[in-house]
Amino acid sequence: MLVVMSHDAAEADVRRVVEVIESMGYEARPMPGKQRTAVGLVGNDGKVDSSRLEGLPGVLHVIHVTEPYKQVSREWRPESTVIELENGTKIGGPEVVLMAGPCSVESEAQILEIARILRAAGATVLRGGAYKPRTSPYSWQGLGLAGLKLLAQARAETGLAVVTEALEPDTVDPVAEYADIIQIGARNMQNYPLLRRAGRAGKPVLLKRGLAATIDELLLSAEYILAEGNGQVILCERGIRGFDDHTRNVLDLTAIPVVHHLSHLPIIADPSHGTGVRAKVTPMARAAVAAGADGLIVEVHHDPDHALSDGGQSLWPDQFRELVEQVDGIARAIGRTLAPALPH
Amino acid sequence: MLVVMSHDAAEADVRRVVEVIESMGYEARPMPGKQRTAVGLVGNDGKVDSSRLEGLPGVLHVIHVTEPYKQVSREWRPESTVIELENGTKIGGPEVVLMAGPCSVESEAQILEIARILRAAGATVLRGGAYKPRTSPYSWQGLGLAGLKLLAQARAETGLAVVTEALEPDTVDPVAEYADIIQIGARNMQNYPLLRRAGRAGKPVLLKRGLAATIDELLLSAEYILAEGNGQVILCERGIRGFDDHTRNVLDLTAIPVVHHLSHLPIIADPSHGTGVRAKVTPMARAAVAAGADGLIVEVHHDPDHALSDGGQSLWPDQFRELVEQVDGIARAIGRTLAPALPH
Amino acid sequence: MLVVMSHDAAEADVRRVVEVIESMGYEARPMPGKQRTAVGLVGNDGKVDSSRLEGLPGVLHVIHVTEPYKQVSREWRPESTVIELENGTKIGGPEVVLMAGPCSVESEAQILEIARILRAAGATVLRGGAYKPRTSPYSWQGLGLAGLKLLAQARAETGLAVVTEALEPDTVDPVAEYADIIQIGARNMQNYPLLRRAGRAGKPVLLKRGLAATIDELLLSAEYILAEGNGQVILCERGIRGFDDHTRNVLDLTAIPVVHHLSHLPIIADPSHGTGVRAKVTPMARAAVAAGADGLIVEVHHDPDHALSDGGQSLWPDQFRELVEQVDGIARAIGRTLAPALPH
Amino acid sequence: MLVVMSHDAAEADVRRVVEVIESMGYEARPMPGKQRTAVGLVGNDGKVDSSRLEGLPGVLHVIHVTEPYKQVSREWRPESTVIELENGTKIGGPEVVLMAGPCSVESEAQILEIARILRAAGATVLRGGAYKPRTSPYSWQGLGLAGLKLLAQARAETGLAVVTEALEPDTVDPVAEYADIIQIGARNMQNYPLLRRAGRAGKPVLLKRGLAATIDELLLSAEYILAEGNGQVILCERGIRGFDDHTRNVLDLTAIPVVHHLSHLPIIADPSHGTGVRAKVTPMARAAVAAGADGLIVEVHHDPDHALSDGGQSLWPDQFRELVEQVDGIARAIGRTLAPALPH
Repeated sequence: MLVVMSHDAAEADVRRVVEVIESMGYEARPMPGKQRTAVGLVGNDGKVDSSRLEGLPGVLHVIHVTEPYKQVSREWRPESTVIELENGTKIGGPEVVLMAGPCSVESEAQILEIARILRAAGATVLRGGAYKPRTSPYSWQGLGLAGLKLLAQARAETGLAVVTEALEPDTVDPVAEYADIIQIGARNMQNYPLLRRAGRAGKPVLLKRGLAATIDELLLSAEYILAEGNGQVILCERGIRGFDDHTRNVLDLTAIPVVHHLSHLPIIADPSHGTGVRAKVTPMARAAVAAGADGLIVEVHHDPDHALSDGGQSLWPDQFRELVEQVDGIARAIGRTLAPALPH
Repeated sequence: MLVVMSHDAAEADVRRVVEVIESMGYEARPMPGKQRTAVGLVGNDGKVDSSRLEGLPGVLHVIHVTEPYKQVSREWRPESTVIELENGTKIGGPEVVLMAGPCSVESEAQILEIARILRAAGATVLRGGAYKPRTSPYSWQGLGLAGLKLLAQARAETGLAVVTEALEPDTVDPVAEYADIIQIGARNMQNYPLLRRAGRAGKPVLLKRGLAATIDELLLSAEYILAEGNGQVILCERGIRGFDDHTRNVLDLTAIPVVHHLSHLPIIADPSHGTGVRAKVTPMARAAVAAGADGLIVEVHHDPDHALSDGGQSLWPDQFRELVEQVDGIARAIGRTLAPALPH
Repeated sequence: MLVVMSHDAAEADVRRVVEVIESMGYEARPMPGKQRTAVGLVGNDGKVDSSRLEGLPGVLHVIHVTEPYKQVSREWRPESTVIELENGTKIGGPEVVLMAGPCSVESEAQILEIARILRAAGATVLRGGAYKPRTSPYSWQGLGLAGLKLLAQARAETGLAVVTEALEPDTVDPVAEYADIIQIGARNMQNYPLLRRAGRAGKPVLLKRGLAATIDELLLSAEYILAEGNGQVILCERGIRGFDDHTRNVLDLTAIPVVHHLSHLPIIADPSHGTGVRAKVTPMARAAVAAGADGLIVEVHHDPDHALSDGGQSLWPDQFRELVEQVDGIARAIGRTLAPALPH
Repeated sequence: MLVVMSHDAAEADVRRVVEVIESMGYEARPMPGKQRTAVGLVGNDGKVDSSRLEGLPGVLHVIHVTEPYKQVSREWRPESTVIELENGTKIGGPEVVLMAGPCSVESEAQILEIARILRAAGATVLRGGAYKPRTSPYSWQGLGLAGLKLLAQARAETGLAVVTEALEPDTVDPVAEYADIIQIGARNMQNYPLLRRAGRAGKPVLLKRGLAATIDELLLSAEYILAEGNGQVILCERGIRGFDDHTRNVLDLTAIPVVHHLSHLPIIADPSHGTGVRAKVTPMARAAVAAGADGLIVEVHHDPDHALSDGGQSLWPDQFRELVEQVDGIARAIGRTLAPALPH
């Protein structure tokens, strides 16, 4: 941490900064310069509350040199985390994983039909919401526990692994019981009690980036899960808030190589929520894999016209099959392959 | 709702849109134009899932004409909501309310000293965090229940009402027991289980705008609380995510007249989190009141250098007294007054 | 255009709106609904100034149904524009074009060495700044006319086409004289006198998206050039302003399929300025091609450590050769190819 | 400048950084820390191109300690700049200046009528566009030189000073001839040839902040003008790009105290373009003055329904008179006054 002083800061101001740093238990190292003095704080263990220094007289600003996260950082753990699901799917290795399914679980017939289509198309993980976070209280809120059971049934019949969202601490346990991966949605990226509970549930966690979250904030939220002893975290870029209304969000694909550089955790992309428009899903799925994504999570529905939610951004089965074919080619072009389809 | 067709949409595409609208139970009204046809959906009760229409062939885009919220809307309830606390403070009427206090409750001595200072300076509501949402899992997380009890003690000794944050559904009840106002923080603006629980707790709720939340999303989150039967909601503008690093956030003060136009709910401003910089708090507090805010929530600490969190954005007591004096003048200039200080 | 009235708008308010629309020479079509009335404006020729309607009493808001641009729109000209340069490079067809070169032209030796490297690696267009827009007045501002002549010399020796920026109307003519493509930079996307002058210069124009420009604004700026009779416009996505400081900008690749849907003009991507970080250039170049970009413009320098500007985001020659190999594979995976290298 | 190394940077990487810094003519000061080494660059004169360091092996990132601007900085010139116009209006001192007028000059009758209304209401500077930057090439583009002459006529008849926009270098001279203040619009904030020309025109310059410009970028653009020897620059906050469509932009009022802290230049606010909605102009004008703005620039029209541009955000004369009364009270509440009205 570097405390930059105003060019007209008094000697006494600099001394005060040194004293405060020392009173916090760190070493202070003043560096007088041509135009101003800066004071280095040595020994920062990531717990320094800089706000205390920012308010001192003569302080221009405080610069953070050390990253605030530890366990998620590739600096401290160079080898990539690879998460293996029960059905053999590996996330974070050389293979690109396809997760797909409807926005919401609607009925037994619906989820089973979609699951069979996806399995045949080559996906290995089934997505589907049972507990739905809806912007309006008057929108349909999902089947809840009944939805979880239908997902488990689809898993039993197809072999697909299941990822579904937990909306609050109390639903983490049922989700962990029926699913292979606990999803934390973008709106809940900084719901810390939920993150902690998910960190203790003993299952992999899919953590989506919040709409206005910096990458450091995303990694700090992941750090909450690792701090509970759970290293099986998959990050997900799903779009940030933008100003253009041709798409719902701005899919920030550069986050993928940035996260790969900063962290050993895998990162996938969600081109469905990232664009919000069906016709943009496949191009952005291709782009995500080209940028290095470890997987995709895509909304697919066998009958989007009658979907209970997000019908307009769900792919038709034929469109998904075309997507798989195209991203297969992209993956090969960069020396990767799609995760192998489940055996018949 | 207006479904705008491509200029080259076929007759059959338009008929399909009409059929889907009618199958949803609404009336469809095609409007052929010079360049394209649009189809009006009549009878929208706020429950139409537009994604189903967006995906149909020939549809260019879908335009929402009706606001998606109801109970929070001033269109349907013109008179402003005024919330009266037990100590007589009224929020949402002609008076401007001052809420102030430390970022976190740290100790009995700390909270009592600050409460006495604030009461003398004219504040009528005490803020202070017991459950703290911290970006890093390694930052101090607050005193929890013990902090709530200290706040209640400060209330008993000073008469100040208390506002403090509930972080998860399970802490809503203790917060409601000890505090006058349940705060929902910006990170939790779309934590729907938390909103519902707060809606059932029988106490006023202070709902902070999320960092990337549109005003419609803020109002829809408030609608969750009203939908549980609790009309006592105070909104709070506390800064949105921006791109300039001279301040922590962009305090979007125009949201204040916008909300007053759209909704009957009161709205206050938080210039401390909205700027993140001590020297900017007072100018922006003045600006918020000038823009029409129904109150302010400000971080004040008797000894910011030793605060356990947010010291750098907390005002010194003298600075807060100056702020009160200045916003008093501003309020008078626009025909309002500060809420009367508590009697001795 | 649809004028949405408040639910409590008076009859007279609606009549006033109708009168104003008719006085503007259009047809008004009131549509009473359950909750409110809307008034359609029929015959909009893209010249309606909606601000006049927005301010009328009882008007809630005005909704634009017709896009404000014409000549750039794919609705009115379905076939894609393909621009052919003198050296045979075609932009906007099935081939993906590689433009590359240094940030700035620095010397004869530098630009010739880089041009030879790029030609051998398969690029067909040479980029390089002669007139440089620099954020600080104290930064080096480019070689000017001398730089243009060096670019022309590099073209003569290698056969590469040349693209370089015109900063003001007065430099459009020299740029048009020495270069094959006139670049309009992001800062000048709404510099209308410059756009008009470029529209009259008789050469293709590369128009970069502004940092905060919506796609409609980008297309409207292109419309300025087409309105002068020049249909040879290449659009360029080069990153929008974001809030994360791990990259300089947010490369908004979804803009590529969005533009392809809305307009017949080609669009390329600039992953160098779009990320601002050398290590992110190749992944995002791959992603751009996967998303459907018609080309790339990339900063390459034979000795980035000693570049006079943007050294930190310039690729080394070896890195560029690797980029070419990878995007070649990506292009093939989606049924395209790289534009053929120039013959020896 | 501080070059932060990766924790696993080799000795040789650090030496390389030191060598590059020294080869640039500065002093390097390595600071080994517990987790990583940082290398300070001493003697930065604001001309260091950090991109050269950012690309070196082992470099994590480069941190700028010194601000990149000089002449605009309050650090180097503590006393505030006060600009005095010919009619006696002083901008940047204790008085708050009111600039007002129509979006565009439309006719002699129009501009004279509005000027008389504004003068009577207490404004001392008349705004009005002669050269109009319009997003669409098909919108009305202003009266040009004829408009300038009408503005000069209005000045002669009323004593109001005149501010109007120059759109390109070639119109700077006529604007400087007829007007008191040359306006540079938001779209042209980084049009450097225009800034330079304005810097040499010998008249005060009103420089509007770009939609996506950081405050440092705004100050650097002002630095271009000062670098030409013209210290009479007035900055203007007029809204940044946001994501909420209830307003056209986000008026970032915190920029006012931020600029006052960083620079000695005056800063005013434009609540008309900052909000784009007539009903929000007065609340935000009040807020701007409360935040410390040195003046306001407001769109007023005697007949907004028939304005040729921006009618929907223009105030009616009565609304402007009410605005003046309210901001007068706000100014007094913070120890300032409105600039005195012109004598009869």
